[in-house]
Amino acid sequence: MYKPLMLAIAMSLGATAWAASPTPGNEPIQPIQPAKVVNASKVELGKQLFFDPRLSKSGFISCNSCHNLSMGGSDNLPTSIGHNWHQGPINSPTVLNSSMNIAQFWDGRAKTLKEQAGGPIANPGEMAFSHELALDVLRSIPQYRGAFKVVYGDDGVKIDDVTDAIAAFEETLVTPHSPFDRWLLGDATAISSTAQEGYQLFKSAGCVACHNGAAVGGGSFQKMGMVEAYATKNKAEGVAGLTGKDADRMMFKVPTLRNVELTYPYFHDGAYWTLEEAVDVMARLQLGRKLSTDEVGQIVAFLKTLTGDQPSFALPILPPSTAQTPRPQPFPVAN
Amino acid sequence: MYKPLMLAIAMSLGATAWAASPTPGNEPIQPIQPAKVVNASKVELGKQLFFDPRLSKSGFISCNSCHNLSMGGSDNLPTSIGHNWHQGPINSPTVLNSSMNIAQFWDGRAKTLKEQAGGPIANPGEMAFSHELALDVLRSIPQYRGAFKVVYGDDGVKIDDVTDAIAAFEETLVTPHSPFDRWLLGDATAISSTAQEGYQLFKSAGCVACHNGAAVGGGSFQKMGMVEAYATKNKAEGVAGLTGKDADRMMFKVPTLRNVELTYPYFHDGAYWTLEEAVDVMARLQLGRKLSTDEVGQIVAFLKTLTGDQPSFALPILPPSTAQTPRPQPFPVAN
Repeated sequence: MYKPLMLAIAMSLGATAWAASPTPGNEPIQPIQPAKVVNASKVELGKQLFFDPRLSKSGFISCNSCHNLSMGGSDNLPTSIGHNWHQGPINSPTVLNSSMNIAQFWDGRAKTLKEQAGGPIANPGEMAFSHELALDVLRSIPQYRGAFKVVYGDDGVKIDDVTDAIAAFEETLVTPHSPFDRWLLGDATAISSTAQEGYQLFKSAGCVACHNGAAVGGGSFQKMGMVEAYATKNKAEGVAGLTGKDADRMMFKVPTLRNVELTYPYFHDGAYWTLEEAVDVMARLQLGRKLSTDEVGQIVAFLKTLTGDQPSFALPILPPSTAQTPRPQPFPVAN
Repeated sequence: MYKPLMLAIAMSLGATAWAASPTPGNEPIQPIQPAKVVNASKVELGKQLFFDPRLSKSGFISCNSCHNLSMGGSDNLPTSIGHNWHQGPINSPTVLNSSMNIAQFWDGRAKTLKEQAGGPIANPGEMAFSHELALDVLRSIPQYRGAFKVVYGDDGVKIDDVTDAIAAFEETLVTPHSPFDRWLLGDATAISSTAQEGYQLFKSAGCVACHNGAAVGGGSFQKMGMVEAYATKNKAEGVAGLTGKDADRMMFKVPTLRNVELTYPYFHDGAYWTLEEAVDVMARLQLGRKLSTDEVGQIVAFLKTLTGDQPSFALPILPPSTAQTPRPQPFPVAN
């Protein structure tokens, strides 16, 4: 008797508040759950590593340089700046909610965040270091050795532990409590009626076929330019770059739309700077549909409700290098 | 009767704790006072601006890039990396406690922090922007306009207000409560006996003649290479670069030694990476004295007690750009 009664009361309250208030369980988009930190020491270590530019050859570029947590976990550039001002080949995806992605990188070449974290460190066009040199740096710093000992029971500092700690920090970078999530959970006034119309259109037009789940994307690979080819000078071929298969050309991981207001410019080439343009392009190229200005405005209003609580933490203070720490090499050494 | 009694008790307690416990008033180095924030909104705005890479042409370089508050307010590089990976001409001084400096930059060419803040934004080898373009960016962002309105009563966003807010934030970047300051204030166990010997030697050898006051430096200009010329490939001429006077050659602002353990590498050319080397060089070149290894070790032990509480605050979240925001130009535009 008890449960049905409570349900009846809840339904009644919901109906009183807003006739169209959704039942989250029936919606293709689910609220983001706040992060559960199981190992605070590991997360703290990972945070320091995420902010430490000494994991790069130059001593200037950290994970946070291109996945800037002040700016939606991205760098807000079409493609990133790497070592020696190298122009990156592809738009830097947001690290926010990246733990919900089916795989990492646009082409999904890393299965996990842990696997991803090792990539940029050793990429000559990004941090331009090597795992061995990065470990030499960390091992030379007593505070890091101490932290690895606490977390991993070993102060040897292994690359597997470095990437594991970075991944553990990144798993905390979720953005709950967005207006949309509050609306999903029953707060009928959390988003505007325009945004609600946008959400209905987002579903009925078919956007939600790929952009769904808690991350509103990130769960599948799709061809960029399903109905109409995507015109770009960018040379990235998506999954085909890994498999060599023609069927995989322009197959990219569907990006999350969480915090999309903060993660401009859009698409793998970062060619579009406004949500209005991005929505128009997506509707035409993926769905074969030309949306009206009003419709685009509604969907954009909805998308802006997906901005959640940004990660909030004290800027980490990094332990200093020692006389044994390999020195950064930002510039060619003059002889 | 009351005051002398209290004084007698205080002296008695001091004597009980440690015979050599100093009376701060008699010491050439004074404790750092915690920051007093008079306008929290201004400081918060300044913090956002300090972390905002949109004040640079590339959208990649912020004040924090070279005055990294995770790393002692410096970049820990010999000379900094600027726009297009430009190799800077001189070591980036720490922003920590910079409000106590007699003037800003190594050659003192800016009288105030406010005057300093405008320099790097428009320097082609640093942020490579212009004040007008930086203002265009800020004016295009409603949250910034709102914050300027709150703080300055005007949402026009003037460069004077931008640099004023950055300076207000920088004035909060002081580092009180170092072990040395706690010792100065009577905690006899706050620093080791080796560090205490180092402090006595620091005074008796004459280091303190230039490195004194609350910032342990920053209060005067001195010739680098007073007794013996400083050998360097660095082309900076110090104050002579401004005045053209031969007498001003190699005259540089005496750097603060607060947090010096964190602000390696040392000197205006960043040529020395360890405190041991830096102390040895200073003693020989400025004082004509060859210190023994033990003496160097004592002074280094003292210098390491000058590391205070690092600024602690939540990483600022920056308001997003809009369709009206001028776009960053990290790379030459292909036509």
